Amino acid sequence: MKKDASQLIAILKSQFDDASFYTEPSDCWAYGYDNSRRHALPDAVVFASNHEDVVKLVKLCAQHSIPLIARGRGTNTTGAAIPINGGIVLSLERMQKIIEIDPQNRFMVVEPGVLNQNAQEAAQKMGLFWAPDPTSAPYSSIGGNIACGAAGPRSVKYGTTKDNVLGLTAVTGTGHTIHTGVYTTKGSVGYDLTRLMIGSEGTLGIVTSAILKLLPIPETKRTLRAFFSSMPSALSAVIKVMQQPIIPCGVEFMDGNAIRMVRNFSHPELPEKAQSMLIIEVDGSHSIIDHDLQAIVRAIQHPDLLEVNIARSEKEATELWKIRKSLSASLRSLSPHKINEDIIVPVSKVSEILEFTEVLSKQYEIQVVNFGHAGNGNIHVNFLVDPFDPIKGPQAKECLHQLFDKVLSLKGSLSGEHGVGIEKRDYIGKEINSDTLCLMKNIKAQFDPQNILNPGKIFPE
Amino acid sequence: MKKDASQLIAILKSQFDDASFYTEPSDCWAYGYDNSRRHALPDAVVFASNHEDVVKLVKLCAQHSIPLIARGRGTNTTGAAIPINGGIVLSLERMQKIIEIDPQNRFMVVEPGVLNQNAQEAAQKMGLFWAPDPTSAPYSSIGGNIACGAAGPRSVKYGTTKDNVLGLTAVTGTGHTIHTGVYTTKGSVGYDLTRLMIGSEGTLGIVTSAILKLLPIPETKRTLRAFFSSMPSALSAVIKVMQQPIIPCGVEFMDGNAIRMVRNFSHPELPEKAQSMLIIEVDGSHSIIDHDLQAIVRAIQHPDLLEVNIARSEKEATELWKIRKSLSASLRSLSPHKINEDIIVPVSKVSEILEFTEVLSKQYEIQVVNFGHAGNGNIHVNFLVDPFDPIKGPQAKECLHQLFDKVLSLKGSLSGEHGVGIEKRDYIGKEINSDTLCLMKNIKAQFDPQNILNPGKIFPE
Repeated sequence: MKKDASQLIAILKSQFDDASFYTEPSDCWAYGYDNSRRHALPDAVVFASNHEDVVKLVKLCAQHSIPLIARGRGTNTTGAAIPINGGIVLSLERMQKIIEIDPQNRFMVVEPGVLNQNAQEAAQKMGLFWAPDPTSAPYSSIGGNIACGAAGPRSVKYGTTKDNVLGLTAVTGTGHTIHTGVYTTKGSVGYDLTRLMIGSEGTLGIVTSAILKLLPIPETKRTLRAFFSSMPSALSAVIKVMQQPIIPCGVEFMDGNAIRMVRNFSHPELPEKAQSMLIIEVDGSHSIIDHDLQAIVRAIQHPDLLEVNIARSEKEATELWKIRKSLSASLRSLSPHKINEDIIVPVSKVSEILEFTEVLSKQYEIQVVNFGHAGNGNIHVNFLVDPFDPIKGPQAKECLHQLFDKVLSLKGSLSGEHGVGIEKRDYIGKEINSDTLCLMKNIKAQFDPQNILNPGKIFPE
Repeated sequence: MKKDASQLIAILKSQFDDASFYTEPSDCWAYGYDNSRRHALPDAVVFASNHEDVVKLVKLCAQHSIPLIARGRGTNTTGAAIPINGGIVLSLERMQKIIEIDPQNRFMVVEPGVLNQNAQEAAQKMGLFWAPDPTSAPYSSIGGNIACGAAGPRSVKYGTTKDNVLGLTAVTGTGHTIHTGVYTTKGSVGYDLTRLMIGSEGTLGIVTSAILKLLPIPETKRTLRAFFSSMPSALSAVIKVMQQPIIPCGVEFMDGNAIRMVRNFSHPELPEKAQSMLIIEVDGSHSIIDHDLQAIVRAIQHPDLLEVNIARSEKEATELWKIRKSLSASLRSLSPHKINEDIIVPVSKVSEILEFTEVLSKQYEIQVVNFGHAGNGNIHVNFLVDPFDPIKGPQAKECLHQLFDKVLSLKGSLSGEHGVGIEKRDYIGKEINSDTLCLMKNIKAQFDPQNILNPGKIFPE
C-alpha cells in the first residue's frame, strides 16, 4: 500500500538543496523505470553526493516509514529498481568518485555510481581489470552490479561480483554505517557480511563505497567461433571444454532459433545447417595462447561440427562477436515484448533443459530463443510473448512454472546472474525452502527493521 | 556460567544408542581440546551419524538451553572448538560419506566429517581438486575447514574455503534445516547464506553436508626456492611477482629468525647470510610451465638475492619444502609455548609490519619468528613466549595490542585464515565497528535465538 510521503518531502526540501532532488512527476518519471520495462512513479528522487547524504536520507525515511529505493542506472531486468509502492528513489549516479587505486595490492575503492566501464578504464591504466563484465558494463554502475550480483561472459574463469568484491561500506535501514570485509585477498574475522549484501538488491543496505579486487590483465586473448549442425553436439563440446585444465574466459552459446533470427535480420552468410553456435575465448601469455587455443579446438571436435573461425586480432574478434551482439537487436525487432529468463543448470544438463524449452515452445505455441553463458550453464531463455497479453500472458506464466520446476529437478537455479526483483519473487519458494526463506527475512529485519529498503523485492508479499 | 546438563544427558541416553555418546569424563577429556592447547571438559560428547541425529540433538539442546559445540578434528588454533562453558560436544567425525562426485559439473557433495585429504584423493581420481589446502589437510575435516574458513598456500591463486564452497545444508540453533547456495558455479536467488556460514565457527548452524566446487588439476607444477640477504628485498620480490600476470599457486615466506632456527635445528647447510626465504610455485600446462617459471625468476631478481633453487620433480620439490616444513618442529623444540598469530596486510605492507614485529621484539624482549603466505600478505607472527606466564604473559598481550593496531593502520586484518575463536574475541572491536558487530550478533540471534551454538566465540562476552 502506498504511504503519504508529503510530510517527509517537506522535510527533505529543508535538508537537501534544490539541485539534489526532484518532486515534479515529470522529473521523477524517468526514475520509475528499469530494464524490466515496468514503471511506477516515485514520490521524489534524491541525488546523494556522499555517504553523509545517504545516512541523513535513510534516517528521515526510517522516521517517516517511507520506502527508499536505491538506484544505479536501472539496467537490471527484474524490476528490482522499481518503486512499486512509491516512496523515495535514491539515485547514486552522482557518487562517482574513484577513491583509490592501489596497483601493488590490486584493489580499487569506488563510490557506487562509478560506471563499470569507467572503473575498468581506470584499472586498465595500471594493467589491471575488475572481473565482472555484464553486457551493460558501459552504462551500469558498480553499485548496481553489487546489488544484482552481476556477472557476464568472463565469470566462467574469473567469477562474478560475489567473487570480486573485498569489502563494502554501507548504510543499513536504521541509518547505521557498517564496514564489511577487508582490503586483502583473504580475511577471517567475524561474519562475512560482504557477500551477504552482494545480490541483496538494495534490501539490506545502501552501499556507499566498495573495495574491488583487481586482477592483472592477461597478455593476450584468442577468440574462436564454432557452428554445429545439432544442439547437443555443441553442448557436449562445452562439457569437454570445461573438463580439461585450460579454463576459457568465455564460453557463449546461441541456439538454432537465435542463429536463424540473426541470419534473417542481418547476417545472411551464416551456415544454413547451423543449429548452434559457440564463442569461446582463452587468455594468457603470448607464448602459450595458441597452445591453449588448440586444446580448445581439440576439445570441441565432433562429427556435427560445421566450421570453426579463429580471430587473431581484436578486429577479427569483434567480427566473430557480431553475431552474438546482433541477437538483442534481432530479438527486439521481431518481438518488442518478451520474457527473458536467466536460468542456470549444471553444465551437463544444459542440453536437457534446452530440449525441454523446445517441448514447452510446441506445447504453448510460444517461440523460444536460447543463448547464454554455457560454460556456467547459465542460459537466457527468451519466450517471444508479451507477458501482459490477456491470453498468451497466463499461458507464458504456466510455461515458466514448468520451466522452473524442470530447472530445479536438474539441480539448477532460477537465476544465474539477474536476480529476483519482482519478476521472480513469486517463484522463489520453489527453490528455497520455507525455513531458509524465513531466516533470510529475519536477517533482512536486522538490517532494516522498518522494511523501508526496497520493500516488496525478492520475497513474495 | 556453566549450566547443569544432567537432565539433558538423561534424555540423550534414551534417544541415542550407547555407541553414540560419551559421558565419562575420561572419555570426554580428549574432546575438550583443540590446537589452541586450551582445554575445558564437556558434559557429554555425542557422535552424529546423519543429518537427523544433528536435528534431534540441536532440538534437545535448545529445549534445555545447553551449549552445543560442533567439532571436526579440533585442528583449529583459536580455541573455537573448546567447550568453555561445558555443554555437549557434537563430534561430526563419523559423518564421513562422500555423497556424490560429479566430474562433468565439477562439484562434490560431502558430509562434514570427511577429511580434507580424503576429499582431495577422491577428486584426484577424476582429475580434479578442491582448492583449500591448510597444513592440517591430512587430519582436518571439511566441516572444520568450513567453520574456520580455512585456506593454505594455494589460496593465493585459487582462493580460500569461502571461494570454493557452492552450497550447504545446515541445522540452525532452533533445529531447522536450511539449504544454501547452488550446485552451479553462479547463482543469484536470495541472500548468500553460504558464505555467511563459512568462517562462522559453528555459531550460526551445524553443517551436515557441503557442495564443494572442484577445479581441474593443472598438468604440472614447478617449485622455486630463493634466499635473500635482507628481508625487504624478498618482500619487494613478492610485490613484483604479484603484479605480473602469471599468478603463482604458492608464495611462501620465512624470515631470518625462522631460517636461523631451522639451520640450527636440522639444516646446517642453509646460507649463513640468508635473512629471508621465498618458496614460489607455479602450475599449468607442460608447454608453458618453464616460461612461467622464468617470468617468476625475472620478477624476483634483486641485488640481495643470494641463491635460487628450482625443483623439476616432485622429489626435488619436497626437498625444497623441507625447510618450511621443519619450521614447526624447530619452533616447538625451542619454545613449547608460543603465541602464533595470523595477521594479514596488503602485500606491499608486509615489509613494514615485519619491521614492526622486530621493534616489538626488542621492546618486550620476546623473540619473534615470522613466516606465512606472503602472496596474500598473510603472516604467521610467532612470539616465543608462554601466554600464561605471569610476567611475560601480560607483556605479550600488550605487545599483541600494539601489533594489531599497526596491522589495522596498514589496512590489514587480525586474521587471514585462522579466525577469531576465543583467542581474538577481545580484539575484534578494534577491527569491526560497534554497529557492524551489533548487526552480526543480531544475525546470530536469528540463527540461534537461545545462543546455544558455540557460545562465547567470536564476540567478546
